[in-house]
Amino acid sequence: MSKVRVESFTISLDGFGAGPNQDIDNPLGVGGTSLHGWAFSTRTFQRAVLGSERGTAGGVDDDFAARGFRNIGAWILGRNMFGPVRGPWPDERWRGWWGENPVYHVPVFVLTHHARAPLVMEGGTTFHFVTQGIEAALARARDAAREKDVRIGGGVDVIRQFLRRRLIDEMHLAIAPVLLGSGERLFEGISLPGLGYACTGHAASPLATHVLITRT
Amino acid sequence: MSKVRVESFTISLDGFGAGPNQDIDNPLGVGGTSLHGWAFSTRTFQRAVLGSERGTAGGVDDDFAARGFRNIGAWILGRNMFGPVRGPWPDERWRGWWGENPVYHVPVFVLTHHARAPLVMEGGTTFHFVTQGIEAALARARDAAREKDVRIGGGVDVIRQFLRRRLIDEMHLAIAPVLLGSGERLFEGISLPGLGYACTGHAASPLATHVLITRT
Repeated sequence: MSKVRVESFTISLDGFGAGPNQDIDNPLGVGGTSLHGWAFSTRTFQRAVLGSERGTAGGVDDDFAARGFRNIGAWILGRNMFGPVRGPWPDERWRGWWGENPVYHVPVFVLTHHARAPLVMEGGTTFHFVTQGIEAALARARDAAREKDVRIGGGVDVIRQFLRRRLIDEMHLAIAPVLLGSGERLFEGISLPGLGYACTGHAASPLATHVLITRT
Repeated sequence: MSKVRVESFTISLDGFGAGPNQDIDNPLGVGGTSLHGWAFSTRTFQRAVLGSERGTAGGVDDDFAARGFRNIGAWILGRNMFGPVRGPWPDERWRGWWGENPVYHVPVFVLTHHARAPLVMEGGTTFHFVTQGIEAALARARDAAREKDVRIGGGVDVIRQFLRRRLIDEMHLAIAPVLLGSGERLFEGISLPGLGYACTGHAASPLATHVLITRT
């Protein structure tokens, strides 16, 4: 059966998955970009996101980045990951952070309280806007993914919602050696052992510590 | 000038520095012992705490454990690190978790709301009980340490008190690949960057990720 996975989700030493005050200039919140040094260093990320042949191929960081793109048939994103617009959509102009050919290349289900027609992009990505909550989004994503897995992209609040309902099978987290001081804490108000999750693997590079958390 | 240092303080992936429900059977709280696998593995810890010649000498974990004992002239501990007794001391019977020859071998200042006469132990350790708060304890510890450093042993709440007043110069944290789910969070309600701290170094072993946090 297909799995529900979180991949390459990075938190700071003090537990924040994004910095505060996200806006159009700070898609990851203020300071949030510093979390992702390990990912930027990888060939997988450079190729998938920036269309570049830079970065290091192979090694701990690249191996983890690469596993995040394997066998993914659909994504689910919180609205703030799709863009900085809040409240009802004023118009159709915002089409995501990623330009006309986004990095996904599969259907992407965006959680929002405000309906919007699907956005068909280049390269196989279609953004679907789901207003009925995470379980409805997951049902649609599973359907779209067929036998492949569903990747939960984030943000923090979305991952917490899925964890609380034990809907995530596997979670790869990276812990970056930075302090953010404020923002959204991934583990706030949530007990992973209490929900039946355990750390089942870990590896470190000079840029991050990678851990695997699995529902047992 | 002598420094105020935290050394070998271990937190879980979800940010807890101790498990919940500390008592005489669980000095580190329930599950808290699982944090310290990296330390138990080291020759430094085995020799200092258990009087054993087991454990691995050298390597990342042992190097960090060893630095924690270098140039320390006095310690400061929260009362819960000294023992499970709460409230006024019912008698003088509780003499710490460590037997008659504790691991410190220097003066140790125990923070408490309840006065008690100093306890002179074997091997150079004397426990002094300080009721006037952390700044008074630090003044006495600095005095006792002479030109050497003062090590803050913990627990979580004590470290947070010292951090909030920017009294810590250097902090070595280990992050263990375990999830505790509840207990005391080291970074709860505290912004290290806001207080002028930054991560200035890190290294990983198979058992823990070690980070250095320094006041800038």
